[in-house]
Amino acid sequence: MRLTIHDRLDDLYRIGDGEGANRPALSVAEEEAHRLVRGWMEQAGLETSVDAVGNLYGRLVGFDPSAPEIWCGSHLDSVPQGGKFDGALGVLAALHAVSDLGPQARTITVVAFRDEEGWRFRGSFLGSRGVIGDITEADLAKADRDGTTVSEALSLLGYTYQPTLDWLTTQPRCYLEAHIEQGPVLAAAGASLGVVTGIVGIAKATVVFDGSAGHAGTTPMRIRQDAAACAAAFQVAAESIARRIGDAVVTFGMNTLVEPGAANVIPRRATVTLDARAPDQQRLDDLIGQLEDAAWKAATERDCSATFGIEMIIDPVLCSADLQVALAEASPGAPLLPSGAGHDAQILGAAGVPVGMLFVRSLNGGISHSPAEATDPNDVDLCVIALAGALRALASA
Amino acid sequence: MRLTIHDRLDDLYRIGDGEGANRPALSVAEEEAHRLVRGWMEQAGLETSVDAVGNLYGRLVGFDPSAPEIWCGSHLDSVPQGGKFDGALGVLAALHAVSDLGPQARTITVVAFRDEEGWRFRGSFLGSRGVIGDITEADLAKADRDGTTVSEALSLLGYTYQPTLDWLTTQPRCYLEAHIEQGPVLAAAGASLGVVTGIVGIAKATVVFDGSAGHAGTTPMRIRQDAAACAAAFQVAAESIARRIGDAVVTFGMNTLVEPGAANVIPRRATVTLDARAPDQQRLDDLIGQLEDAAWKAATERDCSATFGIEMIIDPVLCSADLQVALAEASPGAPLLPSGAGHDAQILGAAGVPVGMLFVRSLNGGISHSPAEATDPNDVDLCVIALAGALRALASA
Repeated sequence: MRLTIHDRLDDLYRIGDGEGANRPALSVAEEEAHRLVRGWMEQAGLETSVDAVGNLYGRLVGFDPSAPEIWCGSHLDSVPQGGKFDGALGVLAALHAVSDLGPQARTITVVAFRDEEGWRFRGSFLGSRGVIGDITEADLAKADRDGTTVSEALSLLGYTYQPTLDWLTTQPRCYLEAHIEQGPVLAAAGASLGVVTGIVGIAKATVVFDGSAGHAGTTPMRIRQDAAACAAAFQVAAESIARRIGDAVVTFGMNTLVEPGAANVIPRRATVTLDARAPDQQRLDDLIGQLEDAAWKAATERDCSATFGIEMIIDPVLCSADLQVALAEASPGAPLLPSGAGHDAQILGAAGVPVGMLFVRSLNGGISHSPAEATDPNDVDLCVIALAGALRALASA
Repeated sequence: MRLTIHDRLDDLYRIGDGEGANRPALSVAEEEAHRLVRGWMEQAGLETSVDAVGNLYGRLVGFDPSAPEIWCGSHLDSVPQGGKFDGALGVLAALHAVSDLGPQARTITVVAFRDEEGWRFRGSFLGSRGVIGDITEADLAKADRDGTTVSEALSLLGYTYQPTLDWLTTQPRCYLEAHIEQGPVLAAAGASLGVVTGIVGIAKATVVFDGSAGHAGTTPMRIRQDAAACAAAFQVAAESIARRIGDAVVTFGMNTLVEPGAANVIPRRATVTLDARAPDQQRLDDLIGQLEDAAWKAATERDCSATFGIEMIIDPVLCSADLQVALAEASPGAPLLPSGAGHDAQILGAAGVPVGMLFVRSLNGGISHSPAEATDPNDVDLCVIALAGALRALASA
């Protein structure tokens, strides 16, 4: 008897150590997940392959192999102590939808991308960016907390990726991705599924404040050049800016690092890691501009300097109108909503591929990146049915 | 030919690895400094001994061995990349002053305390607190960044300290300490030396904010419970409070630690380490009270909670009027000033020992805890002469 999608979600969740999902990018645990899913793809009769950055493909070959493929998938990596559905649901829903379909005119390819989360190497979407030829030597040189670089991690798993300016594989006609919502909107609307209108723009930056060290007791407040005070003032200003712009968010999810780092020494340097998001280009540009000004103001008010290092900007992406229609027809009554989280669909969309996304209702207030991430099993089944319907319609066209 | 105090300061400065002074508490480097100074004490004809926590004593035995001793010294540990004079100057100035004196009526004891800085185990004044019987089992269980506890570090150096409620040794009649100012006051006054009127009170606290984790993209600002935002708002409020109270200072010298610690996850917990100081009891009490209120306010405004964990309060200590007079007579024209830094003298003073302190002018704006810490060699020589004069007057009385 074939395993259900629920069984398989459980199987993936059990991989790795510790509470929740623990499948960091390019780890042994992520690799184990890819091998497991590859086996399930082969059991379902799909033709599997792996590209130079480790992304996994399972093809339901169509009657017309020359027609551009339809892709459907998501990612299998997780943050530490992550949720059961983030990424894994999208890959398995695609697999189960395709398994139920039988051959169509076009080839339908189930895709599992590497390193969507960006947790381990502090740079998201390694797999999908690799596919579209958007990885540089600098990306490959990024190191994790233990000093292992992306290159080394790939090599340990047997991949010999070289940066390219071109796609690693033949470009698809379109890309569909199902994903748990990771927010409270569908639950509030009483809806199992939602059709995504577009995906939020994201800026990631490292902001460094430089001041002057000094003794914590003998340096009066008025003559300090306290880099940690700049960082705190910047964080508070950033919170206000995001609230003022509306539908924008800012998060400082990593430790604030101070140097030299002794309780009785005024920090000469403080470094914060910023994640800023906004739903459209205008608001993203406003947000970044105002944050840069706020960093400069926090520094100059304390006789310090600030360096605002933008590490990545991912522009907001609109979902394809045709794919929104196809998904809406396959999931009657599903509301439309924007995505506040980044997804691999955003990378392919920015590269010119028409993309569509289907959200599955989150429970527990939309909590994600946590073992408390949850959805209703019935919603998962409805997602597979809706994906199958949309894929059938698209593959026959 | 006897080494000069300048040669010996250089010798101590060369111990340990890296730029500046690197003699963390209970490290091999601090131990090496103690051995070196013990040798110099013995060359100077002092009777040396070491107590159960590793403090070093060198006695110039007086004609009346039954009369309570006069102590004079400081500490030999340093923060990482510390300055040449912090602590070392006080020990060596005492040694050179006593070497020049010849026997007096009372015994004069040169003292080198352990772990004044508190950097390694996050709790200052281990040596002087040990002497007065103020170390608990909890102090001994504190661990450094590598997990080594105070007990284990003591044991590795051959010490078998057990907590006691009593002095480790016979109580002295009084304690004098020379120290580099670590501030800009004497340089601004054009004075080589200064007589200290009292020592600032210090509170050290760990403040923990607890909120709720969530996805950085899909959780709107208005419903976040962001623990890192609480910590930043608290730091900004603390800066204002210290400025308002006057002559108070607050420093957050360590990393702000957030959990779970991923760039795209809203922190559910943030922890900051606070160093707060004020010149008298009233202002210290005000400062602590207002900081506690500010932590609570920063948390409740963000639907989070705060735990304000005071780890140590050292009350302000006034220097003995008699010792101020003795030091002022031995250093004509030296201005009076308070000490913004904590010193071992504070611990002995709080235990009822009359204490006096002599400050030596800092250059470079008073920078300390840095290789840029500096003083004029002539000021060091004047310090030895002044200490010798004060000790001679006190020892004959």
